Amino acid sequence: MTQTTFQHITVAFDFPVVFTRRAFDPGNPALAGILGRAGAGPHRLGVVVDGGLAAADPGLPSRLEAYVAAHADRAVLAAPPVVVAGGERAKADFAVLEAVWKLTVEAGLCRQSFIVAIGGGAVLDAVGFAAATAHRGVRLVRMPSTALAQNDAGVGVKNSINAFGRKNYLGTFAPPYAVLNDQALLETLPPREARAGLAEAVKVALVRDAAFFSWLKENAPRLAALEPEVLDEANRRCAVAHLQHIAGGGDPFELGSARPLDFGHWAAHALEEATGGELRHGEAVAVGVALDTVYSRMIGLIGPAEAEAVLRLLVDIGLDVWHPALAALDMAASVGAFREHLGGRLHLSMLTGLGSRIEVHEVDFARMAAARDEIRARASVSGSRREG
Amino acid sequence: MTQTTFQHITVAFDFPVVFTRRAFDPGNPALAGILGRAGAGPHRLGVVVDGGLAAADPGLPSRLEAYVAAHADRAVLAAPPVVVAGGERAKADFAVLEAVWKLTVEAGLCRQSFIVAIGGGAVLDAVGFAAATAHRGVRLVRMPSTALAQNDAGVGVKNSINAFGRKNYLGTFAPPYAVLNDQALLETLPPREARAGLAEAVKVALVRDAAFFSWLKENAPRLAALEPEVLDEANRRCAVAHLQHIAGGGDPFELGSARPLDFGHWAAHALEEATGGELRHGEAVAVGVALDTVYSRMIGLIGPAEAEAVLRLLVDIGLDVWHPALAALDMAASVGAFREHLGGRLHLSMLTGLGSRIEVHEVDFARMAAARDEIRARASVSGSRREG
Ligand SMILES: NC(=O)c1ccc[n+]([C@@H]2O[C@H](COP(=O)([O-])OP(=O)(O)OC[C@H]3O[C@@H](n4cnc5c(N)ncnc54)[C@H](O)[C@@H]3O)[C@@H](O)[C@H]2O)c1
Ligand SMILES: NC(=O)c1ccc[n+]([C@@H]2O[C@H](COP(=O)([O-])OP(=O)(O)OC[C@H]3O[C@@H](n4cnc5c(N)ncnc54)[C@H](O)[C@@H]3O)[C@@H](O)[C@H]2O)c1
Ligand SMILES: [Zn+2]
Ligand SMILES: [Zn+2]
Repeated sequence: MTQTTFQHITVAFDFPVVFTRRAFDPGNPALAGILGRAGAGPHRLGVVVDGGLAAADPGLPSRLEAYVAAHADRAVLAAPPVVVAGGERAKADFAVLEAVWKLTVEAGLCRQSFIVAIGGGAVLDAVGFAAATAHRGVRLVRMPSTALAQNDAGVGVKNSINAFGRKNYLGTFAPPYAVLNDQALLETLPPREARAGLAEAVKVALVRDAAFFSWLKENAPRLAALEPEVLDEANRRCAVAHLQHIAGGGDPFELGSARPLDFGHWAAHALEEATGGELRHGEAVAVGVALDTVYSRMIGLIGPAEAEAVLRLLVDIGLDVWHPALAALDMAASVGAFREHLGGRLHLSMLTGLGSRIEVHEVDFARMAAARDEIRARASVSGSRREG
Repeated sequence: MTQTTFQHITVAFDFPVVFTRRAFDPGNPALAGILGRAGAGPHRLGVVVDGGLAAADPGLPSRLEAYVAAHADRAVLAAPPVVVAGGERAKADFAVLEAVWKLTVEAGLCRQSFIVAIGGGAVLDAVGFAAATAHRGVRLVRMPSTALAQNDAGVGVKNSINAFGRKNYLGTFAPPYAVLNDQALLETLPPREARAGLAEAVKVALVRDAAFFSWLKENAPRLAALEPEVLDEANRRCAVAHLQHIAGGGDPFELGSARPLDFGHWAAHALEEATGGELRHGEAVAVGVALDTVYSRMIGLIGPAEAEAVLRLLVDIGLDVWHPALAALDMAASVGAFREHLGGRLHLSMLTGLGSRIEVHEVDFARMAAARDEIRARASVSGSRREG
């Protein structure tokens, strides 16, 4: 009386991630080439710009319009560019979603049209959620404009807004049509952002890419000086490592509970919350990575020389491995919140080497407290050294 | 200066579609088995029930609670069942989404928990959208409770709500964790619904399954009499044909513009709109299928005997092939709206046989008008015959 059919569906997503400079120079073929993958065109575009970026680079919308005019056979603006609130405000409520949905309705954007989103990770997350849900998905070209967005947030397959008092509570998995990383867009960013973005490079090198870790070590002094060429290369390699993890990690839509790219992030999320956003995400990640690296050594997964190499690299590129808010953190509650966020049984990645990790399912909080004491002690030494 | 990395992601979705009767009899292993695919448990469930179904079958929530109690090692209700508005009202605004999101927040449902949605296609669409977006996706078990939902809407990979005055404007592609078709749930449905649901069976047979078409022909008298066993079999085969099309059609997430499962649907959607929902979806599909079948013959794709077989089958199972609203329809505008809904260039499926089709990219509206005249004439004959 009971009959069962098993449905097997395989969906393939292919998208280019392009690194360039000055994407809106009329002679730069990158954006035209991206659109050309969908046929000759002209393709209809709706454009959404991060308000913080637009304030820092007021000429951007008109450069974009000139670019589209110069490629009129390939693209046409279905409506003038829409500027939305930048930063976490973009994800605070449904305002950006509604603005993008309205844009699709009023400009007649269909599933074969394009939304070009230009901005930081927060704007990309909110616009991406809107694009993924209008008509059940309008093609999205992301143009990330922060270091973190170019090397991590903007190249992934997720979007979200915050809701019910929880970060990233609503969203979808939705690969973009393309990512266009214009590294010249980062020129208007404060240096602190560029440095913070490097924490994700250290993180992704540690969990899967020993060669990248060595490269970061070699180039630490030039990264600390924020030399543009080395920074560009670090961000590109960081992005590629994230891409490789997502494609090759076996679980791109995170149906399981393991998320190696969240190494060090349980403490990072807690620190961001505890400091009310005073700490940049990357700065919090640097502390979280330091903590879980020392913990990995304390539970015998890596040796002292390896742990030392990680802490030294973070310090050498100018990232603090300690923040006072960590002292007051309820670590068990923070790990608990992280588990709930991922769902199911606790999965935390810990290091087994400089480029490899395993998943652990419980935390020895006595040892974790000892790891915390160690990085605090180290920070006070290096702090006094710096002062001295 | 420009470097491109191509990202290739493959995501596999596997889910069972179970046909059973009396799923909440404590001895029925189907639901427990579905949950068991995620490990022994107990798994946390949130349950959402269609208000129309709950009114017609008031004992359902307590039967479900008893079932869960009898399988306490496997499942636990994280909150009491939530009853939401049934029918198209469920998709009219964000109310059902918000109710489901709140349920996930308040009951602490995570990505490894389950939402069980029980209802018609409209409730499944709205609850599915909410489940797909909370935490970027909580596992969804669909229990469709109408003929259309069991044989078509509930076994697919889409969800949606209506917005901005447009049907299905917001939604996502999101395969369920499982579909549990309890055919006994259909016992409280009016006969008209059961009959309307058969239109999708005729449609899917026509576009891809000649053997199913023959089976429908052979069983037309028993289908017309709504004999439960034959109806169950028709709905099961219809569902399986839809599943096969989605899995094997090469475009499960509809990234292109072709949608063979929408054969006959351009006119169906227009008729549903023109009649303000007085016509059931399946009834409108029957008219649309008749129209496009005659049109397929008029443009030389099928012969007269084939077209006749289709019209005869529809009439024999008790479906009208004509509705007066078709006479007043602006057919060019309706085809235009359909094209816009799919996006890009016009794609309409037309029949090349009883079980095969091609895509056409333009419509000869003079011939389409002639096809309309023909089914009108035929209806008046069979109408007067019936009366006589
Ligand atoms: N989807 C994912 O996979 C993923 C991954 C990691 C992080 N994220 C999200 O990314 C967000 C953080 O992104 P972020 O670090 O890019 O910060 P952000 O988006 O919050 O931007 C920081 C500030 O910089 C401004 N800005 C953006 N570009 C600028 C430019 N070129 N010049 C000057 N100002 C500019 C913004 O307006 C904002 O005020 C978080 O919401 C986080 O949840 C998402
Ligand atoms: N997602 C998809 O792939 C897909 C495909 C086709 C259709 N749909 C959608 O499905 C919806 C139509 O679904 P439907 O035909 O199931 O109708 P419906 O969901 O509108 O339900 C019709 C009525 O029956 C009631 N009801 C449900 N089950 C009942 C039962 N067992 N006994 C008595 N009453 C019951 C409902 O409360 C409602 O009032 C449309 O919104 C359509 O867009 C979705
Ligand atoms: Zn991060
Ligand atoms: Zn249909």
